[in-house]
Amino acid sequence: MNLDFLGQVEKAFQAVQDEQVASIASFDGALTVTRDLWDRSGGGGGDTRVFTGGRVLEKGGLNFSAVRGEVSAGLRQQLQTEATRFAATGVSSVLHPNNPHVPIIHMNVRYFTLDDGTWWFGGGIDLTPHYIVASEAQAFHGDLKAICDRHAVADYPRFKAWADRYFYSPHRGESRGVGGIFFDHLGRDGTIDREAALAFSLDLAGQFSAIYARRATPYVDRTATEEERRWQGLRRGRYVEFNLVHDRGTRFGLVSGGRTESILMSLPSRAEWTYDHEPAEGTPEAETLAILRRGVEGTDWLSAGI
Amino acid sequence: MNLDFLGQVEKAFQAVQDEQVASIASFDGALTVTRDLWDRSGGGGGDTRVFTGGRVLEKGGLNFSAVRGEVSAGLRQQLQTEATRFAATGVSSVLHPNNPHVPIIHMNVRYFTLDDGTWWFGGGIDLTPHYIVASEAQAFHGDLKAICDRHAVADYPRFKAWADRYFYSPHRGESRGVGGIFFDHLGRDGTIDREAALAFSLDLAGQFSAIYARRATPYVDRTATEEERRWQGLRRGRYVEFNLVHDRGTRFGLVSGGRTESILMSLPSRAEWTYDHEPAEGTPEAETLAILRRGVEGTDWLSAGI
Repeated sequence: MNLDFLGQVEKAFQAVQDEQVASIASFDGALTVTRDLWDRSGGGGGDTRVFTGGRVLEKGGLNFSAVRGEVSAGLRQQLQTEATRFAATGVSSVLHPNNPHVPIIHMNVRYFTLDDGTWWFGGGIDLTPHYIVASEAQAFHGDLKAICDRHAVADYPRFKAWADRYFYSPHRGESRGVGGIFFDHLGRDGTIDREAALAFSLDLAGQFSAIYARRATPYVDRTATEEERRWQGLRRGRYVEFNLVHDRGTRFGLVSGGRTESILMSLPSRAEWTYDHEPAEGTPEAETLAILRRGVEGTDWLSAGI
Repeated sequence: MNLDFLGQVEKAFQAVQDEQVASIASFDGALTVTRDLWDRSGGGGGDTRVFTGGRVLEKGGLNFSAVRGEVSAGLRQQLQTEATRFAATGVSSVLHPNNPHVPIIHMNVRYFTLDDGTWWFGGGIDLTPHYIVASEAQAFHGDLKAICDRHAVADYPRFKAWADRYFYSPHRGESRGVGGIFFDHLGRDGTIDREAALAFSLDLAGQFSAIYARRATPYVDRTATEEERRWQGLRRGRYVEFNLVHDRGTRFGLVSGGRTESILMSLPSRAEWTYDHEPAEGTPEAETLAILRRGVEGTDWLSAGI
């Protein structure tokens, strides 16, 4: 385990958290930001910043953590390793807006290293609009492609396809949203430089608030009807389902003794469920649902769009 | 596989569903009951009754299903069997009330059989008050003990302890509610008579609406403050977490291609999450949370209570 590099990543992730919190707070001036510093009994701890009651954002947070500990038998098998000690550090964020015309966003970058010398980066960003607007999805993917194109270690088409597969709820037969990029085990095979992988992760995390502001700003003052707010509640229900049933990071955290409140910071303040809800034909809700049910895998937002 | 007995169980479960739906509809005269008959592509189907907009109940349902199919490789390993075909039938229900002073209830009975001739019953009932009232928990457990005491195949202390362990969220360190009874693989070891196990299951399911009405009725017209409704929303959030993260029936159903809408009928119409919410000391909310955090395992509601 290269402790110098680990320390460098931890500092850089903390710095990017500070910078992103400041940027989000300036974007949404009404936001209340509270800070929760915590320790982990097994080793390490974190810094959770919680967002509430903003003009744009109803609830959200930006979490930094740096933990270390023993590799459990289960994890050893999952990772196919003989290593006994691990260290992990990461920054993650989910933002739930007030207005149903503003999308939900999620971002995560993380670094994992073992005492056998192996290390890797993982992470991603994905956008979950309550109402899909093709030009917005196109611009969002354009931003992500631009970041990937600046880094030899990042492969937009591969990471985009990975996100399409990852952010999918099999039990609903629906994509979560318009996808984004997802990557894991980046560098584990020893073919890339760790500084280059870190630079890519920092670029991605450092663009997070700007990427979101561009997608949110045009819709912040859009009028929302009761029906649209109800639809938002139902889509948030799907978000809760994805996170609790499928999201590997959430599930791994919850069963491995991670810090529950920081992990479940990703949940909205309110979610709704209606038995077998089906939007009326021809409505914007039905249009969005049709796209999600078709699945966004294979959709090339950058050219044809939907 | 004894198809005659399977048919007998299916008919009896359907009858008990009809009877319980009628009984709940008469208990809550304002309730809208809709019926959704469905087929399963792999074989069989079900009958989902959905409750909405009642005076007592905000949302709920009573689901009957009778399915059959191939034993998947995963299920074969889980059940430690060489069998290739299975049949399963069951009745399950969750009721979410309007009033936070009225508890949530869940009931399930099921029969499972394999083509190697093995069979078993499973099921249970548990009560999840938003506000724990010791005398109500005592009366609820008294009802369950009385049912168990009528059947030699049912062991209240064992089934009560099983429910205490089952309806527990490790990631929250909280019991879901005041427990109830839970049992599984009843009869699998070949030591009991299947007619006796069926009689116990039918007695339990047949008492469901009466058991609930006794616990709900005294609280239906209780005034509820905004703060109490908010607490109800947060406790419903915990209910959603338990069902999606831990409940084996829900998870098995969702990953094995069960009918999502019927499975997730158990979710409330609305749930809430607030980061690190902690009720003020000395409040009824803090009192209930303290009981759940202490865990109800080992609590003898019938004598000392809490």
